[in-house]
Amino acid sequence: MSRREPAIPRGFRDLEPHEMILRKEVMAKIESVFRRYGFDPIDTPAVELFEILSGKYGEEAENKLMWRFRDPWGDREYALRYDLTVPLARFVAMHRNFPLPFKRYHIAPVWRHEEPQRGRYREFYQCDADIVGSPYPEADAEILMLAEDVYRELGIEGVRIMINDRRILKGIFEEELGIRDPMNVYRAIDKLDKIGLEGVRGDLKRIGISETIIDKIVNIISLRAPLEEAIRDLQARYGSNQHVIEGIKHLEEISTIVRSKNIVFDMSLVRGLDYYTGPIFEAIVEGIKIGSIGGGGRYDNLIEMFTGTKVPATGFSIGLDRVIEVGLELGVFNMSKKTYNQVYVVVMDRDSSVFNYAINIVRDLRSNGISVSWDLMRRSYQKQREYARKLSVPVILYIGKAEVESGKVTIYITTSGERREIERDMLAKTLKEIL
Amino acid sequence: MSRREPAIPRGFRDLEPHEMILRKEVMAKIESVFRRYGFDPIDTPAVELFEILSGKYGEEAENKLMWRFRDPWGDREYALRYDLTVPLARFVAMHRNFPLPFKRYHIAPVWRHEEPQRGRYREFYQCDADIVGSPYPEADAEILMLAEDVYRELGIEGVRIMINDRRILKGIFEEELGIRDPMNVYRAIDKLDKIGLEGVRGDLKRIGISETIIDKIVNIISLRAPLEEAIRDLQARYGSNQHVIEGIKHLEEISTIVRSKNIVFDMSLVRGLDYYTGPIFEAIVEGIKIGSIGGGGRYDNLIEMFTGTKVPATGFSIGLDRVIEVGLELGVFNMSKKTYNQVYVVVMDRDSSVFNYAINIVRDLRSNGISVSWDLMRRSYQKQREYARKLSVPVILYIGKAEVESGKVTIYITTSGERREIERDMLAKTLKEIL
Repeated sequence: MSRREPAIPRGFRDLEPHEMILRKEVMAKIESVFRRYGFDPIDTPAVELFEILSGKYGEEAENKLMWRFRDPWGDREYALRYDLTVPLARFVAMHRNFPLPFKRYHIAPVWRHEEPQRGRYREFYQCDADIVGSPYPEADAEILMLAEDVYRELGIEGVRIMINDRRILKGIFEEELGIRDPMNVYRAIDKLDKIGLEGVRGDLKRIGISETIIDKIVNIISLRAPLEEAIRDLQARYGSNQHVIEGIKHLEEISTIVRSKNIVFDMSLVRGLDYYTGPIFEAIVEGIKIGSIGGGGRYDNLIEMFTGTKVPATGFSIGLDRVIEVGLELGVFNMSKKTYNQVYVVVMDRDSSVFNYAINIVRDLRSNGISVSWDLMRRSYQKQREYARKLSVPVILYIGKAEVESGKVTIYITTSGERREIERDMLAKTLKEIL
Repeated sequence: MSRREPAIPRGFRDLEPHEMILRKEVMAKIESVFRRYGFDPIDTPAVELFEILSGKYGEEAENKLMWRFRDPWGDREYALRYDLTVPLARFVAMHRNFPLPFKRYHIAPVWRHEEPQRGRYREFYQCDADIVGSPYPEADAEILMLAEDVYRELGIEGVRIMINDRRILKGIFEEELGIRDPMNVYRAIDKLDKIGLEGVRGDLKRIGISETIIDKIVNIISLRAPLEEAIRDLQARYGSNQHVIEGIKHLEEISTIVRSKNIVFDMSLVRGLDYYTGPIFEAIVEGIKIGSIGGGGRYDNLIEMFTGTKVPATGFSIGLDRVIEVGLELGVFNMSKKTYNQVYVVVMDRDSSVFNYAINIVRDLRSNGISVSWDLMRRSYQKQREYARKLSVPVILYIGKAEVESGKVTIYITTSGERREIERDMLAKTLKEIL
């Protein structure tokens, strides 16, 4: 067999145990909040037919960022899923047996061919909660309460949820400013965080927006204020525009239910994806420059593209990798736990009576739910101890001839340095108290 | 936006909440056993460079079953991972910082372009536990004890673990029978369950094996017996063959540690993958025709293909979908749980004082860890109740003007039909007792 240099595709990564242990803890917390809010889990395949994803995200996503490939055995075109929202829409169209509203969560990887950067990989996990079937602000409010609770559960402080509404944007950009293709303008504005105001100006110019209109846009998107204040402002300026009014009314009703000071109106929040139709959301952390740690919104027309009948929906997606980055930076998460191992059994003697005594103890502790490792390398007891220490196991057990004869076990608690002799029969119970 | 018929690639599937709820329970049990045995989690990307997977699984796997595709933006070739073993080998080569033995588990989907059939999909989950670094039977024994414990934890009875050793096969097939390319013969034998003995004979003939040798092969692979009995038999017939003796000795030592009657020697167990070098395993359930529910073995040369130095390894892979099929057939699993929702709050009145009372109760119960849903559809209370019943929620709460005035809540337990009035302050506590 010939040697092959080990390598991984660019923008992808492995996760080591200390990373996975934290990740599983974070995912479990997110999932517990999803469940508390009455959301149930589904799963969809990583591989979708390209035609299903096509026409949903916009031209750049579809042609530059989506992992598309031809069936090696047939003539179909496939794509790795780009988010969990379009697969949900397809799912809903193919499984019509659920009573509405259908509240589902989905925690799974998605693939995007973006430039790798901090907290952003080409394969990353989204944790989505969506409500299918309700056109009412109650559903958006439920989603926002859930989002706030997820970040609270994770201990991430300083979270602000930015809010806007595609109808407000439509009223202002299409009707007041007369822009014909607003999605292009939104996608330029959406890059504000990445490329700055001058960058956005440049992009807008490039897509043919006049300097006068660009100045107006720059002025408009500077509106960022507590929701009630923003609503008064918008009402004063665009009170006669039907779309703006519709959006305002919807946001007001959401606000009445959610009653949170952390929800802030931000006109520069536009979201880059095509499918939004109503309120849109994005969560950021004050003072941390990593972009959004979650986002979502209402997409009342997406499911209709598969069903032919209107099925309103709204949802929120937590960016797992970003959340972990932020939690680490804030010091609320750490990766100090390197193993689930709780006990390492050092066998002091190769004698078969000692070995049998030890292996029986290993079996017994495992059947008591304790995580145990033992020597699989035929090492000297010094080397076994060295391994146990490298593994950062909290408790080390020593078993030799003396222990077999006395019916006891010597335990060593690595954190405190305490050493004790325990009766064989009391071992599992004692360890459970220590661990 | 134009209508698109919803569709999913052939051989793939969605999982609905009742399927996911069972699946999560099964995965949690498997994971708990992995942890008890001192295995730690890792993750690797779904997308690998094709060159990493190439030359590891055999020609059919590589050219017919592997999902390969070209980078749409560059000239690299990618593949969706085909199992979790080769990615582990690459991982070990790229992360050399772990003390050996490195015991890792990995629960993740893999992709194979096989004909869809019962319990077999083109995307399916494997639950792998592997030990990297030990050449000793202790490691294989650890793996077999773990496999037995996983099936025990899941309540699946009648599991037999078939065992053989590639060195025994090498000694007999290559040296005694003079077969030059044994992998082709193994792959033919590996199909025994699918195509029967006559099918295997046909396949062997097609790859150029003579009738005389085919008769011998058929006779040889009929050996299936308790491990000790099989070892005596093999010793008598091939006692002078060094490879057979090596294999026998290794299996004997495994057996001394594992001491299980459910481990059976089976000469027709060969495993179709190229990379095995020592003991090989496969778990089946007596009387259930679904093929194996898990398998594995020792692969002492695989990691060397990436590192250049020998790193022995052994492991076992639980086939999650097959295990679930079998558990359902045996009646030890069921999919009766359709939702995590525990409480549905019926709001009897659209009055804002009632609404506020209700939403505060929803918030309060959720902060107590109870899973709650409420009306997001502005439905009449009769329709709300109907929805709650369709959702199969165990407890329904009724909140109207009377409840607001009395400071109480009416609860209805759907399983028993019991109806009670509870003081607002006692609600969370009472519900926790009921649920």
